[in-house]
Amino acid sequence: MKNEVKVGVIGLGNRGLSMLKLIIMKIEGVKVEAVCDVYEDRAKAGADAVEAKQGKRPLMTLDYKDVLAADVDAVFILSSWDGHIKIAIEAMRAGKYVATEVGGAYSLDDCFDLVAASEETGKPCMLLENCCYGRKELAVLNAVRKGVFGEVVHCSGGYHHDLRNEITFGRENRHYRLNEYLNRNCENYPTHELGPIANVININRGNRMINLVSFSSKARGLHQYVEDKKSDDKELLAAEFKQGDVITTVINCENGETVVLTLDTSLPRTYSRGFTVRGTKAAYFEDNDSHFLDGKHNKFEFAPRLLWGNGKRFVKKYDHPVWTMCRKGLVKAGHGGMDWIVFNAFIEAVKLEEQTPIDVYDTAAWMAVTALSDASIKGGNVRVDFPDFTHGLYKQPREKLKNKYSLN
Amino acid sequence: MKNEVKVGVIGLGNRGLSMLKLIIMKIEGVKVEAVCDVYEDRAKAGADAVEAKQGKRPLMTLDYKDVLAADVDAVFILSSWDGHIKIAIEAMRAGKYVATEVGGAYSLDDCFDLVAASEETGKPCMLLENCCYGRKELAVLNAVRKGVFGEVVHCSGGYHHDLRNEITFGRENRHYRLNEYLNRNCENYPTHELGPIANVININRGNRMINLVSFSSKARGLHQYVEDKKSDDKELLAAEFKQGDVITTVINCENGETVVLTLDTSLPRTYSRGFTVRGTKAAYFEDNDSHFLDGKHNKFEFAPRLLWGNGKRFVKKYDHPVWTMCRKGLVKAGHGGMDWIVFNAFIEAVKLEEQTPIDVYDTAAWMAVTALSDASIKGGNVRVDFPDFTHGLYKQPREKLKNKYSLN
Repeated sequence: MKNEVKVGVIGLGNRGLSMLKLIIMKIEGVKVEAVCDVYEDRAKAGADAVEAKQGKRPLMTLDYKDVLAADVDAVFILSSWDGHIKIAIEAMRAGKYVATEVGGAYSLDDCFDLVAASEETGKPCMLLENCCYGRKELAVLNAVRKGVFGEVVHCSGGYHHDLRNEITFGRENRHYRLNEYLNRNCENYPTHELGPIANVININRGNRMINLVSFSSKARGLHQYVEDKKSDDKELLAAEFKQGDVITTVINCENGETVVLTLDTSLPRTYSRGFTVRGTKAAYFEDNDSHFLDGKHNKFEFAPRLLWGNGKRFVKKYDHPVWTMCRKGLVKAGHGGMDWIVFNAFIEAVKLEEQTPIDVYDTAAWMAVTALSDASIKGGNVRVDFPDFTHGLYKQPREKLKNKYSLN
Repeated sequence: MKNEVKVGVIGLGNRGLSMLKLIIMKIEGVKVEAVCDVYEDRAKAGADAVEAKQGKRPLMTLDYKDVLAADVDAVFILSSWDGHIKIAIEAMRAGKYVATEVGGAYSLDDCFDLVAASEETGKPCMLLENCCYGRKELAVLNAVRKGVFGEVVHCSGGYHHDLRNEITFGRENRHYRLNEYLNRNCENYPTHELGPIANVININRGNRMINLVSFSSKARGLHQYVEDKKSDDKELLAAEFKQGDVITTVINCENGETVVLTLDTSLPRTYSRGFTVRGTKAAYFEDNDSHFLDGKHNKFEFAPRLLWGNGKRFVKKYDHPVWTMCRKGLVKAGHGGMDWIVFNAFIEAVKLEEQTPIDVYDTAAWMAVTALSDASIKGGNVRVDFPDFTHGLYKQPREKLKNKYSLN
């Protein structure tokens, strides 16, 4: 087992830079050897941060290929969505472990290529889906595995996040989301809710997403926001946003579960991932932080308010062993600790030189939702099939990982 | 204007009998002349209740045709789902105003026939969708009409009601739902949430539902319940329920809104109609009783809990004029007063001899969801089109009703 992992970090926007800082400040046994961004000021900010902490200036470059050529074991791809798969494939072909920030795929071909690159090189590719390591999500997963929910039949979740400011000020902030919202219309960010749900219903581990249908509401939120907050931007005021305000996607799974995903990023509201798990014996609802156990809570059938907030006790009772193990390291680690755990999960795999807990099949299947959603909406809410990226392997038991952050 | 309306009541199960009692005890200007149920004991209980209150025994019959032949202005159809449309059509042809309890349609043909019967006879047919008159639903409608929500782009709702006991003890209780759950698989009860949403987005009044897709989860909840609570019922224990536990239906509307409906009646949980309205300026969420006003609540973006329950203030502020008018009459009228208002809305139309506030086009379009959902699921989540039952009239302004309970 390696004691130290050398990494390169590609993509240093706001989120990228803060992730870089998390890596150098909080993750043990990691040395950042190279940093990269297409903008020089961002690359410099990254290099400065690394130098300040590690004492030595890393390779600083505007071209990610320099990072792939460097002597690193692994690369973190924290750049804009449209680069993730391309860079990931090149990185695996350069012999690196790959960790990629979340985002959707632009085509199924990209997903197939990603899987092929991993299979051909033997290098893992892990989607850094931090929400798989959220405390609530982990506790529900743990309770499901213990049988508390009985048989799970339906799950839902969403990316409910008012991004109107980030999107409409995208040019000023050099944020890529603006172009996405101007030019595409699909479930562009499915994995924060889908990742945890996939774990709950054993996707790629005995179960599989077989098809989906996506729906788009009209697009009105961003134009209204521009009118309200940015009416001097004549170009944006005249622009037509293609991305519908609310995208609803329904997925059918081989074992009979339905999964409803909602993308909801351009209307006023509070943040939520709307995590909901429904079983024959229990239910969990993030949106009023409640759980319902059959035989225990039935007397509250018409007094739901009395259950609001009881999710806290549930989570405490069923805290996942991974969460319990990590608790000490989680103080102020950002995003409620999820980022810290998911980064450690990846680094641990590199150290162990084994498969990552979220592997290339998970990465491809989860990211594929975006491409399939796009096709479904373009086709008039037509049902589109998921490929089986595992070539049937999902039916067989997975190898047991040594990784202590593994959720399998 | 009539001072007194003579009515017949068909269908006196638990709900029917309590509705009959509401009519005779709480609705002014109504005289029940005939009661009917296929079970004699139920018919007798109805006749007894009427006699006790009105002093004269009404016609009591096991055959609804006797009610249609009686000297009544209107009939209430409170029988099982599968009789609603058939009896409604015959009643209109017999010259009666028709009020029918909620439930879905079994075929589009039935819906067309219903509309044709009303058009040919000039007799209205009103779905007794009480939830259109729920206080929350009315207040949100009022706020939408005042522009508080900006442009509404998405709505959702559900019939989240744990009916496992009612369904699995259906034989003992002579309740028809059991057969429905054994033999059909569709959104069988869409109107409690759809009615209020249809009002919010002006369905049949400038807007129209154009198509939908429905999805079914596997069916596991009822079998589990039978195992837990009724394992001595060998027949039911061996039965295979066809109705999926969670049915998700997504509707596209002509003006670009999406509507998500959820039928959720065979898994453990609390009751909810999950009423959610999303606009460019505001949001309303029943499930944690909150509203969000853009420009006011944004500081709570990551503290949603602080908004839970603020829906109460919102509802108070935007109470609908119909609700305000009715408040005095609503004390202990049942179902939070909704039933009382919807019955009055119908009776008022009969008195005025004008169109009902919920008319045959609304009734047909809302009930059609069930037939379309059935077809969509059977076809493998295929998108199916709504007919325009109004023949294009939905594009024109409606006649202004004198009815003080009208929501137009």
